[in-house]
Amino acid sequence: LSDVVGADHVRTDAASLQRYGQDALGIGHPPDLVLLPANTREIAAIARLCHEHRIPLVARGAGTGYTGGAVPTRGGVVVSMERLNRIIEIDEANLLAVVEPGVVTGDLQRAVESVGLFYPPDPASLETSSIGGNVAECAGGPRGFKYGNTRRYVLALEAVLPSGEVIETGSKAVKNVVGYDLTQLLVGSEGTLAIVTKVTLRLIPKPPVRATLMALFTDIQAAVDAVTGLIGRRIVPVTLELIDAEALIAVSAHVGREMAPSGTGAMLLVEVDGTQVAVDEEIDQVAHACRDVGAIRVVPAADDEERDRLWTTRRLISMALRSTGLLKINHDVVVPRGRVPELFSVLDELREEYRLKIVAFGHAGDGNIHVNLMIDPNDPDQRTRAKAAERVLFERVVALEGSISGEHGIGFAKAPYLPIELSPEEIALMKRVKGAFDPNGILNPGKIFP
Amino acid sequence: LSDVVGADHVRTDAASLQRYGQDALGIGHPPDLVLLPANTREIAAIARLCHEHRIPLVARGAGTGYTGGAVPTRGGVVVSMERLNRIIEIDEANLLAVVEPGVVTGDLQRAVESVGLFYPPDPASLETSSIGGNVAECAGGPRGFKYGNTRRYVLALEAVLPSGEVIETGSKAVKNVVGYDLTQLLVGSEGTLAIVTKVTLRLIPKPPVRATLMALFTDIQAAVDAVTGLIGRRIVPVTLELIDAEALIAVSAHVGREMAPSGTGAMLLVEVDGTQVAVDEEIDQVAHACRDVGAIRVVPAADDEERDRLWTTRRLISMALRSTGLLKINHDVVVPRGRVPELFSVLDELREEYRLKIVAFGHAGDGNIHVNLMIDPNDPDQRTRAKAAERVLFERVVALEGSISGEHGIGFAKAPYLPIELSPEEIALMKRVKGAFDPNGILNPGKIFP
Repeated sequence: LSDVVGADHVRTDAASLQRYGQDALGIGHPPDLVLLPANTREIAAIARLCHEHRIPLVARGAGTGYTGGAVPTRGGVVVSMERLNRIIEIDEANLLAVVEPGVVTGDLQRAVESVGLFYPPDPASLETSSIGGNVAECAGGPRGFKYGNTRRYVLALEAVLPSGEVIETGSKAVKNVVGYDLTQLLVGSEGTLAIVTKVTLRLIPKPPVRATLMALFTDIQAAVDAVTGLIGRRIVPVTLELIDAEALIAVSAHVGREMAPSGTGAMLLVEVDGTQVAVDEEIDQVAHACRDVGAIRVVPAADDEERDRLWTTRRLISMALRSTGLLKINHDVVVPRGRVPELFSVLDELREEYRLKIVAFGHAGDGNIHVNLMIDPNDPDQRTRAKAAERVLFERVVALEGSISGEHGIGFAKAPYLPIELSPEEIALMKRVKGAFDPNGILNPGKIFP
Repeated sequence: LSDVVGADHVRTDAASLQRYGQDALGIGHPPDLVLLPANTREIAAIARLCHEHRIPLVARGAGTGYTGGAVPTRGGVVVSMERLNRIIEIDEANLLAVVEPGVVTGDLQRAVESVGLFYPPDPASLETSSIGGNVAECAGGPRGFKYGNTRRYVLALEAVLPSGEVIETGSKAVKNVVGYDLTQLLVGSEGTLAIVTKVTLRLIPKPPVRATLMALFTDIQAAVDAVTGLIGRRIVPVTLELIDAEALIAVSAHVGREMAPSGTGAMLLVEVDGTQVAVDEEIDQVAHACRDVGAIRVVPAADDEERDRLWTTRRLISMALRSTGLLKINHDVVVPRGRVPELFSVLDELREEYRLKIVAFGHAGDGNIHVNLMIDPNDPDQRTRAKAAERVLFERVVALEGSISGEHGIGFAKAPYLPIELSPEEIALMKRVKGAFDPNGILNPGKIFP
């Protein structure tokens, strides 16, 4: 393996093994070896060797995932994509980009926006996460309501199979129905089927204007009613971010001033984009929809500076939660949008029954709510209660016709809960699909499946 | 099998066997038996029996496909979905519909539009084709440029495996990254992996206003330049239909008057939608983009009547071609949009080299062009030349970084050409995926794979 990548691109020191052994979940396991290949050919050679010798092989992007998808839970080889970091092509005529998996999402966005194009998916980690990781986990983000998540933008992939075979799925054409859609199958497969080595992404014209509005409500139900009202008015905002009272309190405590007047039960951040006339019309409709359901306050942003200020609360939530010193267990559950109030009722029940601090915020348009269980890591009883609450949360979400993960994936953290959502037949079928790609089971073992 | 569905729902007469033995391709093969089940349970029982006795099993929607996807090329059982034709639910709050596969696409569109919602995919066959068939082939249509094809709207599926197991893929939540995306894998799999028995579709708010513009150009290059100019202006029309000179001549001959002045080399039909102000602004930009590249004529529609008139040519093409008495071999090839002029150069070469009448039109925004080889069915030499031209067409399309099918699928008609686009490794992988679903190979045998 050292011959394949060159001795300079092998890491075996303890610090590297630790660093490449974990992601944002914070629960790691060291690999036996870290390799930094330069290209597809080297990755194919690595795969072939691992396949032959049945060595676990884990592809790694930037390690910003929340479910341990990049963690080599069974040791073996970590292949880091950090040297495959070129934007190969931005094709303005055909509205597409071809990139290597190690390109940082934010860098791609700036590159395409500089020529008037737009890559919509915007996971919170976009300044550090890589396109390869975004593809592996099917990353989402606030803009998902209008623009969809990573899946919608992946046109074609180059990928290495465990056998060392290199496949190309899809094409540069925006439509393609030739054989099975392996492109879409690989998106979200968390590195368990193949190692993606090149990504062709669909782009769209950059919307010329955007506008932002912040509204405060007495409770979650009113905020969701505003969202329903918007949809009734046939408005499709880019972003519909919902922030609950616990999150507002946490941010207020963090910055040392009140982010919302007392009695505020929910904050909604709405963003629309398009041409100037369309945006003016839509943001007006948004304000009406919020006032119609009795918003406490409706604040449109007049310029980019005001927009930044409106986003302050949302932006500070994660930092505020981390600064509490508590362990933040983040679950990105998702329900049909109309059932978001029921989901928040479930959270109230869980807070009471399991005596837990729970902070929730997320993408109300998609029904994708980040539920954060805030745990004292030194209190084993709290950990036990959180574990129990977690399972109930997932069961209730599935009962609400939702899903246990909207954009973070399963990794190893949620693998035990897969049977809550999928039947034994469905899991067995997925395992057979896995076997079609990876008969020796070397790719990212211990992930997805319980 | 008769016990499963009841004797009233079994067809064995010659007329039925012929009728259920072909689709719009016009090259059929009779099944041994036609069954009209009423529900998922019956379909599961049929599948189990066929699986056990290794009897070919072909699910059939409305039989409007162009590649023989619904043809039981090896006999066996055809399961028609015509009795599974209920719209189970239209959920306005969550913007989704749950339907049985036999629902006619146009019926669903009217039902959702009556409550202000919108199901964008619009295959030409929408008044007869069914949602199940649309899902099986991943149907497209003119609106694809802005709204994407069937794939983008399928949230969840209920499907029967050959073993008789019933699986549910996806969920009503618009985001879901729990395990492999079997939903997207089933879309476009042409009934070779499972039999879809229920479809959950994402809807969008119905755009309140639309506007149409027709423009004539001296040649294809100018029309494509207009499209490129539009995209440069960051306009995303719903529809960008391109019609070539041969198609204009065919329609003119059919109706007995000139559809365009002599010297016209291409017609472009552009449609935009959205709010009134947005539409006014966009259609103005469209007109500018057409005039900038020297359009011969630019005609906006002032009302629905004028709109209908502008669409006349496009609507009449298929009928005009059929009325020639020639056999119309329709190939829905697709290239990256910027390479559409190169594709038309290829067609010119093919016309000359193989002495063939070739009529082309299609979705210029997607680069998805319907190339119709017009053949005298009684001239074996022409048939031979057409066969040779077909292969060259597909080879050239793939060389242009395109795909041999954008929306019609492979069926059996294009199966021999699969290796032009896919490598042996890719085909072998797809066969292993097929085996994961259908180990005995009973589902729609003879399709997709060469």
